[in-house]
Amino acid sequence: MLRDCKAGERFEGVLLVNEWKEVPFRQKPGAYLSMTCQDRSGMIQGKIWNYDPQVLVWLKDQDIFRVKGVASEYRGTIELTIEAIQIVSKEDVDLSDLLPSSPVTADELEKRLAVLIEKIIQPELKMLMEMILGHPEWGNAYRKAPAAMKIHQAYLRGLWEHSVRVAELAEGIAKHYAGINRDLVVAGALLHDIGKIGEYSYDRGVKFTTEGRLLGHIIIGIELLTEEIAKIPSFSRDQRSKLLHIITSHHGKYEWQSPKRPKLMEALVIHYADAMDAELYQFEQAKENHPQDEWSPYIPSMERFIYLK
Amino acid sequence: MLRDCKAGERFEGVLLVNEWKEVPFRQKPGAYLSMTCQDRSGMIQGKIWNYDPQVLVWLKDQDIFRVKGVASEYRGTIELTIEAIQIVSKEDVDLSDLLPSSPVTADELEKRLAVLIEKIIQPELKMLMEMILGHPEWGNAYRKAPAAMKIHQAYLRGLWEHSVRVAELAEGIAKHYAGINRDLVVAGALLHDIGKIGEYSYDRGVKFTTEGRLLGHIIIGIELLTEEIAKIPSFSRDQRSKLLHIITSHHGKYEWQSPKRPKLMEALVIHYADAMDAELYQFEQAKENHPQDEWSPYIPSMERFIYLK
Amino acid sequence: MLRDCKAGERFEGVLLVNEWKEVPFRQKPGAYLSMTCQDRSGMIQGKIWNYDPQVLVWLKDQDIFRVKGVASEYRGTIELTIEAIQIVSKEDVDLSDLLPSSPVTADELEKRLAVLIEKIIQPELKMLMEMILGHPEWGNAYRKAPAAMKIHQAYLRGLWEHSVRVAELAEGIAKHYAGINRDLVVAGALLHDIGKIGEYSYDRGVKFTTEGRLLGHIIIGIELLTEEIAKIPSFSRDQRSKLLHIITSHHGKYEWQSPKRPKLMEALVIHYADAMDAELYQFEQAKENHPQDEWSPYIPSMERFIYLK
Amino acid sequence: MLRDCKAGERFEGVLLVNEWKEVPFRQKPGAYLSMTCQDRSGMIQGKIWNYDPQVLVWLKDQDIFRVKGVASEYRGTIELTIEAIQIVSKEDVDLSDLLPSSPVTADELEKRLAVLIEKIIQPELKMLMEMILGHPEWGNAYRKAPAAMKIHQAYLRGLWEHSVRVAELAEGIAKHYAGINRDLVVAGALLHDIGKIGEYSYDRGVKFTTEGRLLGHIIIGIELLTEEIAKIPSFSRDQRSKLLHIITSHHGKYEWQSPKRPKLMEALVIHYADAMDAELYQFEQAKENHPQDEWSPYIPSMERFIYLK
Amino acid sequence: MLRDCKAGERFEGVLLVNEWKEVPFRQKPGAYLSMTCQDRSGMIQGKIWNYDPQVLVWLKDQDIFRVKGVASEYRGTIELTIEAIQIVSKEDVDLSDLLPSSPVTADELEKRLAVLIEKIIQPELKMLMEMILGHPEWGNAYRKAPAAMKIHQAYLRGLWEHSVRVAELAEGIAKHYAGINRDLVVAGALLHDIGKIGEYSYDRGVKFTTEGRLLGHIIIGIELLTEEIAKIPSFSRDQRSKLLHIITSHHGKYEWQSPKRPKLMEALVIHYADAMDAELYQFEQAKENHPQDEWSPYIPSMERFIYLK
Amino acid sequence: MLRDCKAGERFEGVLLVNEWKEVPFRQKPGAYLSMTCQDRSGMIQGKIWNYDPQVLVWLKDQDIFRVKGVASEYRGTIELTIEAIQIVSKEDVDLSDLLPSSPVTADELEKRLAVLIEKIIQPELKMLMEMILGHPEWGNAYRKAPAAMKIHQAYLRGLWEHSVRVAELAEGIAKHYAGINRDLVVAGALLHDIGKIGEYSYDRGVKFTTEGRLLGHIIIGIELLTEEIAKIPSFSRDQRSKLLHIITSHHGKYEWQSPKRPKLMEALVIHYADAMDAELYQFEQAKENHPQDEWSPYIPSMERFIYLK
Repeated sequence: MLRDCKAGERFEGVLLVNEWKEVPFRQKPGAYLSMTCQDRSGMIQGKIWNYDPQVLVWLKDQDIFRVKGVASEYRGTIELTIEAIQIVSKEDVDLSDLLPSSPVTADELEKRLAVLIEKIIQPELKMLMEMILGHPEWGNAYRKAPAAMKIHQAYLRGLWEHSVRVAELAEGIAKHYAGINRDLVVAGALLHDIGKIGEYSYDRGVKFTTEGRLLGHIIIGIELLTEEIAKIPSFSRDQRSKLLHIITSHHGKYEWQSPKRPKLMEALVIHYADAMDAELYQFEQAKENHPQDEWSPYIPSMERFIYLK
Repeated sequence: MLRDCKAGERFEGVLLVNEWKEVPFRQKPGAYLSMTCQDRSGMIQGKIWNYDPQVLVWLKDQDIFRVKGVASEYRGTIELTIEAIQIVSKEDVDLSDLLPSSPVTADELEKRLAVLIEKIIQPELKMLMEMILGHPEWGNAYRKAPAAMKIHQAYLRGLWEHSVRVAELAEGIAKHYAGINRDLVVAGALLHDIGKIGEYSYDRGVKFTTEGRLLGHIIIGIELLTEEIAKIPSFSRDQRSKLLHIITSHHGKYEWQSPKRPKLMEALVIHYADAMDAELYQFEQAKENHPQDEWSPYIPSMERFIYLK
Repeated sequence: MLRDCKAGERFEGVLLVNEWKEVPFRQKPGAYLSMTCQDRSGMIQGKIWNYDPQVLVWLKDQDIFRVKGVASEYRGTIELTIEAIQIVSKEDVDLSDLLPSSPVTADELEKRLAVLIEKIIQPELKMLMEMILGHPEWGNAYRKAPAAMKIHQAYLRGLWEHSVRVAELAEGIAKHYAGINRDLVVAGALLHDIGKIGEYSYDRGVKFTTEGRLLGHIIIGIELLTEEIAKIPSFSRDQRSKLLHIITSHHGKYEWQSPKRPKLMEALVIHYADAMDAELYQFEQAKENHPQDEWSPYIPSMERFIYLK
Repeated sequence: MLRDCKAGERFEGVLLVNEWKEVPFRQKPGAYLSMTCQDRSGMIQGKIWNYDPQVLVWLKDQDIFRVKGVASEYRGTIELTIEAIQIVSKEDVDLSDLLPSSPVTADELEKRLAVLIEKIIQPELKMLMEMILGHPEWGNAYRKAPAAMKIHQAYLRGLWEHSVRVAELAEGIAKHYAGINRDLVVAGALLHDIGKIGEYSYDRGVKFTTEGRLLGHIIIGIELLTEEIAKIPSFSRDQRSKLLHIITSHHGKYEWQSPKRPKLMEALVIHYADAMDAELYQFEQAKENHPQDEWSPYIPSMERFIYLK
Repeated sequence: MLRDCKAGERFEGVLLVNEWKEVPFRQKPGAYLSMTCQDRSGMIQGKIWNYDPQVLVWLKDQDIFRVKGVASEYRGTIELTIEAIQIVSKEDVDLSDLLPSSPVTADELEKRLAVLIEKIIQPELKMLMEMILGHPEWGNAYRKAPAAMKIHQAYLRGLWEHSVRVAELAEGIAKHYAGINRDLVVAGALLHDIGKIGEYSYDRGVKFTTEGRLLGHIIIGIELLTEEIAKIPSFSRDQRSKLLHIITSHHGKYEWQSPKRPKLMEALVIHYADAMDAELYQFEQAKENHPQDEWSPYIPSMERFIYLK
Repeated sequence: MLRDCKAGERFEGVLLVNEWKEVPFRQKPGAYLSMTCQDRSGMIQGKIWNYDPQVLVWLKDQDIFRVKGVASEYRGTIELTIEAIQIVSKEDVDLSDLLPSSPVTADELEKRLAVLIEKIIQPELKMLMEMILGHPEWGNAYRKAPAAMKIHQAYLRGLWEHSVRVAELAEGIAKHYAGINRDLVVAGALLHDIGKIGEYSYDRGVKFTTEGRLLGHIIIGIELLTEEIAKIPSFSRDQRSKLLHIITSHHGKYEWQSPKRPKLMEALVIHYADAMDAELYQFEQAKENHPQDEWSPYIPSMERFIYLK
C-alpha cells in the first residue's frame, strides 16, 4: 500500500496512473516523466528520470501498472523514484482496489440506510426507494459513486456516505417543525444527489463524464427519477412534483446551479443539511490532515482559514 | 371588442375577469369592486360602484361574464363603469377567444415552421421534430402557449412565434461559422422553450402552473424530451446529450436559472438569439405603445429608458 | 381583544397606537386620521373620519388610548372606524399586555432552556450561562425581547423562543460529528443573538434603539459578553475567543453583517441552525396565514413564492 | 517560419523577441536566458543556456534578431535552444512580417467590406465610412490593428476581420425586425471598435498604448468620430448622437466598461453580434487547437470547458 | 414665493408647472388635475378640482402660469387648491427666477473659483481653465447648470458649487502627499463634471437631454475638452491624456459608469473628493430637512438611515 | 544591512528567518533549503545548496540566525547563497532591529500626534486619548504595531503613521463642512484601527494572532475602547455610541467587514480618509519601487496597473 511507503525504502505494487507528463529539464536538454500514482490507500507523485519512449505509448492507453521504485521524503511529502514500470492487463486487477473509498464501511452504511428506509411510511415513496436501491445497475452505482470530484467525500462510497448523513441530519432537524413531511425529507435527502451516478465515472480515478459536464447531476437525477417514478402508477402527481423539486432546488441558489430555490420546508431542510455536511466534512478533513496545527492552510473553497484547536 | 371601446359609449360583451378586489372607499364606509376585464383585443379596468354581494360568490368560482357598462377615459386610459354583470356558462364560450394572441397568424407561423423543418437533414432530429409538432397534445400546446408571463410575447401563440423567430435568427447566424451544426441549431432553437407548455396554464389568462413554479420550464422540457427521444431508438446518445444541453443552458447563466453554461457553439448561438429576441421584442412593444414619444418610460426588466425615435 | 373584532360589531378597549398620519382627502379639502392600533392579540388599522385637532397633540406624546368604534371588513381585513379616543395614563396599564408575544409559553421555554443548560458540562460556560440568565436586568430582557423587527419571531419572547430552538437544532446536528464541542454549541446557540436585548426597544411596539442602529446586535453582544466573562476569572482566553467568534460570525457572511466567517465547527453549525430556523419560521407563518391557499404571496425576504400544500 | 520547426531540426531566421528574462538555475549558481520568439507563423519559447552578457544590452534596446538554434519537443510543445543570436537593423526588416495576421486575406476582407459599404444608403453615413476607410492614417490602421490583446482575433487585421463579421451578423439579424435602421447597423458595427486603432500598438507584438490604458477604446473612438463627423456639416445631430451611443454602449454593461447600456435597437444588435462573435471565435480556436480532443482545457475567459465534438 | 405660503392663506404668483396629470376620482366618475408647481423658493403640489378642458391644451405647450389659489396643510406639507390658472408669455418672465438655485451666492463662488485658478501654475492648464470659464456659452452654462437630477446639489449653480468644493477638498488632500501634481488636481476637480453642461437641460426644471441619456456626462465632457484642448497647440499630449483620464475615471468604478478606474494619484483624489462631497451633501440636507429628528428617514441612495444628532 | 548587499559581495549579519522550505531538486535526488531572510532594511531570498540536517531542527524552533554567504543578482533581484548559519540567542538581539519600520521617524510622528491631540477640546475625548496613548501596554503597542499584513504600511510604526495621516486628512476635510464635530473626527481617526494592536503580532515578522483571525480588529477595538471608556464615568452614552460606531463602520461596507455603514458625517469622513490613504500609499510605493517605469506591474489589490509618470 502506498500509505505504508517510507523514505528510503523500496516499493513494489500495482498502481493506477492518473495524470502524467514529460517535464523538460530546465538546465539541460531532455525531460523526465512525472506521474500521479494511486492505490486505495492514497496518492503519490512518481518520477522516472530516464525513460524508454515506449512507456509513452503505454501511458496513452493504459493506466494500471506494476511499479518498482524507491521512496524519498521532503517535509512529509513522499515521492517515488520509479525504476521499472510494466503494463498490467485489466483482467488481472480489481479496479476498485486502486481507488480510495469511504472510511465508513459498506456494512455500517447498509445498516444506517436500512434504519432510514424503515422510517418511510408512505408506500409509494418506500417502493421508489426500494426500487432504486435494489436496481441492478443504479443500486450498485449509488453505493459505489463518489460524492464529489474534490472538496467533500471524493472517494468510492462517498455518495452513499454523504446521502446517509444528510438524511440523518435532515430527519433530526425535521422533528423540530410540525409542518414537515418526514417521509419526503428522508427520501429526498437519500436521493438529492442521485444524478452523481451519471455525472462522474470512477473506474480509474474520479472523472466527469461527458453527460456530467453537459447536463450536471441535477438534470441527470431528474431524468433517472422520471423514469423510475413512471414505473409506479400510483405515485401521485403532487408527490412526484415535490420530489423532483427537492432535486432541482437542493443547491439552494441559482448561482450554485439550482434552477429553482427551495419552496418546500422539506426542500429547504435538505438544502441546509447538504450544504452543512459538505462544509463540516472539510473541517473534519482539515483536522485530520493537520493534527498538530492551530490553523489550517487557506481553504479556497471556503475562502478562509479554519481554526483547528 | 374592448379595443373598440370609446369614452362615453356603452359596451356590452363577454369578458374574462382575471383579478378582482374590493377597494374600500377612503372617505366613507363601504367599498367598490375593481376588476381586470379582458378579451382577445385587450385589457381594461372595470369598476362596480354599487354591487350585489352575490357577485362576490360568482367571482370566486367563475371568470367569464357577460358585462354591460359605460366607458370613460383619462389621458388615454379607458375604464369601464360596469352596470350589469352576469355569469356565462363555460360551455357557451370559446375560451381562447378571450385571450390575446400573437399578431402573427397561425398560417404564417405554420409556413415559416415548415421552411425551418425542411432545413433539417439529420433523420432522427427531423423525426423528433415531426413527432413533437404532430403530437396530439404537445403539438397543439406548442402552437397555443404563450412565451412568457409578461415581458415578451405574453399571449397565445407567443411560444410559437418566439421559437420560430429564434430559429430563423440562429440559422442566419450559424451560416457565418463553419463549425456549427445547422440541423442542431434549428431543432434546438425550435425546442429551447418547449417546457413552457407545462410551465404556464393559459385557459383563462396566463398563469404559472404548480409544476411550473416547482420545476420551471427547463426541467419540464428535459422531462418531455427524454420521453420523446426514448421513442426513437436510433437517436444517438451523443445527439441526445447535445440537444438536452441546449435546453439546459439556453438562459446562458447560472443566475438566470440555467444549471449549465453553453458549451457548444449551437447552444451559444441559441442562447444569444433567444436573449436578443426577448430584448428586441421589448423595443418593438415600446415603439408600438408610445408612437408619439421620444423616450419610453423606464423599463424595469431592462433597467433603462429606450430611445424611440 | 382586537382578534375577536367582527365586522359590524362595536369595539371598546385599550390599545397601543404605533404609527399615525393625517391622510388628505383626494376629492375634497380636509383629511382623516389613519392609525395602527395594536393589542396583544393583533394589529388593526383605525380611522377617524372627523377628528378634533386636539387629538394630534395627544398622539405626539402618548401612545396608549382607550378607543371606541365599529369594525368593518373587506376581504378578510378588519378595519376600525374610531368614534372616541381618550388618553390612558401609563400607570394604569401593563404595557406588555399590548404587545403580541410568542405562541410558546414562558413555562415551556423555561423548561426547554433548563434541559439545554443541563447539558453544559464545562463549569465556566455553565457559570456564564447562569449568570446571564439570572442577571437582574439581562436575564429578564433575554426572556422578553423579540427576535427581530419583522421577518421572524417579531414579538415578545421571540428571542427566547428562537434561541432555544436554535440551540436544540444545533445540539441535534452536533451529535453527528465527532469533533464538535457540544457545550460550546449549546451555549453559543443560546447566546448568539444576545445583543438583540440592546438592539431593540419593545416597550411599545418593536423599535430599533439608537445603539442598535449605530452598532447592531453583534457589537452589542460582544460588549455584553466581554463584561460578563470578565467576572469569571477562570474563563480561559481560548474559550472566550471561541465564544466571541461564534457571536461575531453567526450571520455567516460579510454581506450579512458578520465581520468574520465561521472558522469553528461550532460556529458553522450555529450559523446554519440560525439561518434555517429563521427561514422555516417564515414557512410556518405562511402556512398559518394562508391555510386555504396552494401558494403563498410573494415573500420579499425570501425572494420567492412558497408552496403551502 | 517558426511553424515549420520540427524537433531535432535546425532553425535559422529573423525573429521578434517580445519578452525575455534571466532565469536563475535552481541547483547551481548562474542563470539561463528565456525569451519569447515570434514570427508571422507563430510563437516559440527560446532558451540560451550560456549567454554573453552583451546580449542583455542588445535585448534592452532591440527586438529583432537573426537567430540560429535547434528545436526540441515535449508533448507537442516545440522549444528552441538558441546557439547564436545577432541584432538586425530595423531598416532591413518589414516589421509586420514578424507578427501573425488574420487567416482571412486582405483581399477577401476588402471585398466583404465593399459589399457592406454598398448597403449603406444614407449619404452622410456613407460619406463618413468612406472618409474613415480612405483616411491616410486611420484607414490603414483600421485594416492593420488587432481586435484584442488576447482572447479573440489578437493578430494583425484582427480588427478588420472582426468588424466585418460583426457587421455581416448584425445586418443579417436586423432583417428580422421591422424597426431597425440597417444603415446605422452596418456603419455602427464597422465602427464599434474603431478606438482600438489607438488602444493598441502593434509594431512589434500587440501592446497597450498609454492612451489605451488611460482612456480605453470607447473613449478614443468617441474622440476620433467626433473629429471626423465635424468634417461633414450635413451630418445630423440626431444621427451623430446615435452613432456615438453605439460606440459608447457596445459592451452592453457598465461592468464591461460601457458607460451606457444600449438604448437603440441598432445598439443592442451590435452589442449582441460583437459579444457573440468574440465567444464563437474562442470555440473556433479551441477546435482548431485541440483537433483530437473531446473537451477543451478550461477557458478562463469563458469560465468553462468547451465540448469539441 | 411658494416658501412663504401658509395654510389657509391665499396665494397668487407666477409658477413653473413641471408635471401634471389627470387623476380619476376613485368613487365617482370624473377626475381632478394634479400638478407640480415650482418657483425659486420651492415646490408645491397643486390641485384643480374642477377644470376647464381648455387647460389641458395649455398644459401641453406651456409651462409657466399665473396661478391663484388657497394653501392648506397636512403634517407640514402645504398643498395648493388652484382656483384660477392663466398662461404667461415666455417673454414676460425670467425663467431662471422659477428654479431653485444654490444657497451659495454667485459672488462667493466666483471668489472661491478665482482663488483656485490662482493656484494653477502650469500655463497650458491655466489657459484651458480660463478659456472654458470665459467661454461665451460654456462659461455661462458651467455657472448655471445643476450638479445632478436629484440626490445632490440638484439646483441652479449646483455644478459650480459642487466643483468648487471638490477642488478645495482635493487640493487640501493633495498637500499630504508628495507625489501629487496639485495643478492637475485643481483643474481636474473643477472640470470633472463639465459634461453635465450638456447632460441636463435646466430652463424649466432639471431634465435629462437626449444626448445626456444616450452618452452621459463623461462622454460629453470628453468631447468638450477634446475640442477646447485642440485650441492650445502647446498643451502636451501627456497632460491631455491625464486630464481626459481624470474625467473618464472620476466615478471610480465600472459599475458607476466610469470606463476606467483611477490610475493616477490625481484621479484617485478627485474620485474620492467627488464621492465624499456628494454623500456629505446628503447628510447636510437630511439635517436641514429634519432639524428636530434623531434619525433621518431611510435614504435609498445611501441604503441607510442617518443619525442626525 | 541587507539593503546594502551587492551582487558578488560577501554578506555577514544577524537575520530573521521567516519562512523556509526544502525544495526538491527537479533533476536529481535531494533538495536544497530556501528561506526568507529579513532585517530592518529589507528582505532577501536565501538558499543553502548543501545543508546539514541539523539546521532543520534549529529552523523549527528559532528564527534568528547569524548568516554568512555571497550575494548574487538576476535582473535587480539579489539572492543570498548561504555558506554558514548559526543560532543566535534571543537575549542577544533587539528583535525590533530585524523588522522594517516606517520611514517616518517616531519623533516626527510624536510631534504630529501632539498637534492633533491639541486640537481636541471636548474633555472626556481628550482624556480618553491621553489614557490610551499613555497606557503602559497599549500606548506602546499603538506606536509599534504595523498598519497591515501587506498592502499598506506593513511595517513597525505603520499603524501610528497611518493613523496620524488619516487624522490629518480627516481634520482637513472636516473644515469644509459646518456640521462636523472636529473633536470626534480627530479622535475617531486616531483610534479607528486601534484593534490592530491585538490583530497582529509583530515580534518576528508581521503575523495574525489567533484573536485577530477569530475576531478581527474591529471587534478587538470595540473591546478595548469599551474597557477604557468605562474608566471615564463622565463620558456620555451618546459620545460613546458615536465613537464605537466610527470603529464599527470605518471599512464602509458590509463586504469589507464593517457590520454597519457610516451613519455619521464623522464616520463617513474617517472611512473615506482611511480608504484613500491606503490606496495612495500603494501609489507612493509603486512609484518608489519602479522609479524608471511608465507603468507599474499589475496590482492585484487595486485590480489595475498604475501610471507612474
